[in-house]
Amino acid sequence: MTALMKSVGVRAMKLLSSAVNFRLNQCSETPIRSLRSFSTLRSPPSKAIVYEQHGSPDSVTRLVNLPPVEVRDNDVCVKMIAAPINPSDINRIQGVYPVRPPVPAIGGYEGVGEVYAVGSKVNALSPGDWVIPSPPSSGTWQTFVVKEESVWHKIDKSCPMEYAATITVNPLTALRMLEDFVSLASGDSLVQNGATSIVGQCVIQLARLRGISTINIIRDRAGSDEARENLKALGADQVFSESQLNVKSVKSLLGELPEPALGFNCVGGNAASLVLKFLREGGTMVTYGGMSKKPITVSTTSFIFKDLELKGFWLQNWLSLGKVKECREMIDYLLGLARDGNLKYETELVPFDEFPVALDKALGKVGRQPKQVITF
Amino acid sequence: MTALMKSVGVRAMKLLSSAVNFRLNQCSETPIRSLRSFSTLRSPPSKAIVYEQHGSPDSVTRLVNLPPVEVRDNDVCVKMIAAPINPSDINRIQGVYPVRPPVPAIGGYEGVGEVYAVGSKVNALSPGDWVIPSPPSSGTWQTFVVKEESVWHKIDKSCPMEYAATITVNPLTALRMLEDFVSLASGDSLVQNGATSIVGQCVIQLARLRGISTINIIRDRAGSDEARENLKALGADQVFSESQLNVKSVKSLLGELPEPALGFNCVGGNAASLVLKFLREGGTMVTYGGMSKKPITVSTTSFIFKDLELKGFWLQNWLSLGKVKECREMIDYLLGLARDGNLKYETELVPFDEFPVALDKALGKVGRQPKQVITF
Repeated sequence: MTALMKSVGVRAMKLLSSAVNFRLNQCSETPIRSLRSFSTLRSPPSKAIVYEQHGSPDSVTRLVNLPPVEVRDNDVCVKMIAAPINPSDINRIQGVYPVRPPVPAIGGYEGVGEVYAVGSKVNALSPGDWVIPSPPSSGTWQTFVVKEESVWHKIDKSCPMEYAATITVNPLTALRMLEDFVSLASGDSLVQNGATSIVGQCVIQLARLRGISTINIIRDRAGSDEARENLKALGADQVFSESQLNVKSVKSLLGELPEPALGFNCVGGNAASLVLKFLREGGTMVTYGGMSKKPITVSTTSFIFKDLELKGFWLQNWLSLGKVKECREMIDYLLGLARDGNLKYETELVPFDEFPVALDKALGKVGRQPKQVITF
Repeated sequence: MTALMKSVGVRAMKLLSSAVNFRLNQCSETPIRSLRSFSTLRSPPSKAIVYEQHGSPDSVTRLVNLPPVEVRDNDVCVKMIAAPINPSDINRIQGVYPVRPPVPAIGGYEGVGEVYAVGSKVNALSPGDWVIPSPPSSGTWQTFVVKEESVWHKIDKSCPMEYAATITVNPLTALRMLEDFVSLASGDSLVQNGATSIVGQCVIQLARLRGISTINIIRDRAGSDEARENLKALGADQVFSESQLNVKSVKSLLGELPEPALGFNCVGGNAASLVLKFLREGGTMVTYGGMSKKPITVSTTSFIFKDLELKGFWLQNWLSLGKVKECREMIDYLLGLARDGNLKYETELVPFDEFPVALDKALGKVGRQPKQVITF
């Protein structure tokens, strides 16, 4: 802790404080502050995954013990239960994500916790409630998080905690993308690549609930037959590996399905071109990821004669449009689906002490792994 | 003519007839038809540029003498005055345009003519009126064109005929693109490549009339300094050659201009990437051509973090939406601008007999040339 405290100046501390409610300034033990502290509600000491500089997550993150912080009148202190490691968390630590907290910072962006203590002006939340930060915000990889009441969304405890911890980033992305771009009706279809991702799996299940068929594109790799069967078990109508789509026209592969008017791309490169190939005239492809790290290449005729539209989706941008209330309603809907077994995806729970193991798995160092969810 | 008549069967003749009102079946001189013809209004014999098969325009087109055709009750016979050679005309002859008349066909898609004769049920047009086919339709490269009254849009004769002949494809594309995608106000800006094209020149002038600044990208080639000055004389605010934009950020090149929310691309490849580079967050690029024959390549981050949208524009598609009335009003507006000297572009008038010379110029065989307009 001393090294961390020495490494940052007062200004940086303020930034850190505002970014992650990690109020180190509270622990400068002057007499006046000591006197004040008699009447001040404080969090317990916390353990957190901190990075002081951007870089490779396995070299710049470390577990740090943090002193108690003040719980102000409008604050809520939450004892974290579980929080996932998402690709965007890794990108934030690497410093390649366009919006990220200033360093030093605590990792994590979503999760679920139990209210531990509330400030004097907090009415809507009580100790014992389950809450998630919504919109998601930085600093969920710690045992106690203190943030303003407005940050927290109270949820029903009936949903398994691994879903509550992971509902705000990936499943919400799937639902928003399904709702916000093209108005699809029962009987319509959509096409997506990266179908084995959590967003992809959610798209399949959410579409199926609406009577919308899905055409799914997966990579050619060992185990793709198993992946295909898994997706079909979730409700996927068609699953193709990229090499199966190396044909002049994909229309004949559609069988009874109508040509899709909506496509989702989280891969780029050839896999994005395949989504475009499936789209019908006037269709829209929404890009929300670039796992292949390859750009998207589009022919002129796709725009002029096929009238395709290409757009992007970024949950963070979407939330900045002030649709928090609408998103919380969607989250409740998604949690209900998860509770009832209508929305499933694989997670692996990892105790907080074993964070480095979970991180290695999330970084893909040990092959394909389920979504890593840290438990506190 | 005999060869042409021999080369096509009855069925092909019917197709040809319906496509271009080139009614060869009227010249099968049976006694009954001869009797009927006493009471039948007919066009004069016509000369036309015909192609019997798709291929290189300079090898598949030829001048053909056509017999008179019937002018039915709702038909109007127009003596053509002038018609341009557009790139899309060339693509139709090559057979690479997605919508094209069946062969054999008469070339040309827009033009201006004078009403020569009208059918008995035609009320709104009279001999001497100037008309253009609107929406544009096939077969304008002939001396007399017979089409239904509804095809023809009567225009004011005060506009120079070279503008009347060319207003429906390129200037209308520029105006529609300016109106239909992003709502721009005075003080806003837009960016475009291929700025020396007729559409590009029209965009500059139409934008300027609305108080919208233009950032223009041109190719690096001999004469680019002169091209820059010509565009500035039309009202271009900034003109850059592609090599000038080989910088990390183009923001500093904007000077006082705001970042553009709208971009037009008719080139593809690097020139399209440069348009994207200029666009502000949330901006839209509209593709309406692909002169470089290279695809458009877009990074994933452009979609997700910069929230760019990519769309296409095709006048023909747009007209199929049934906006003929609106387009005719726009055409009248554009013709008024041309008449008053507020919309200018260079054309070269070429007598019909010298069509092969004009075609060679339009095909780019003799360097950069003004828009070739055939006069009849």
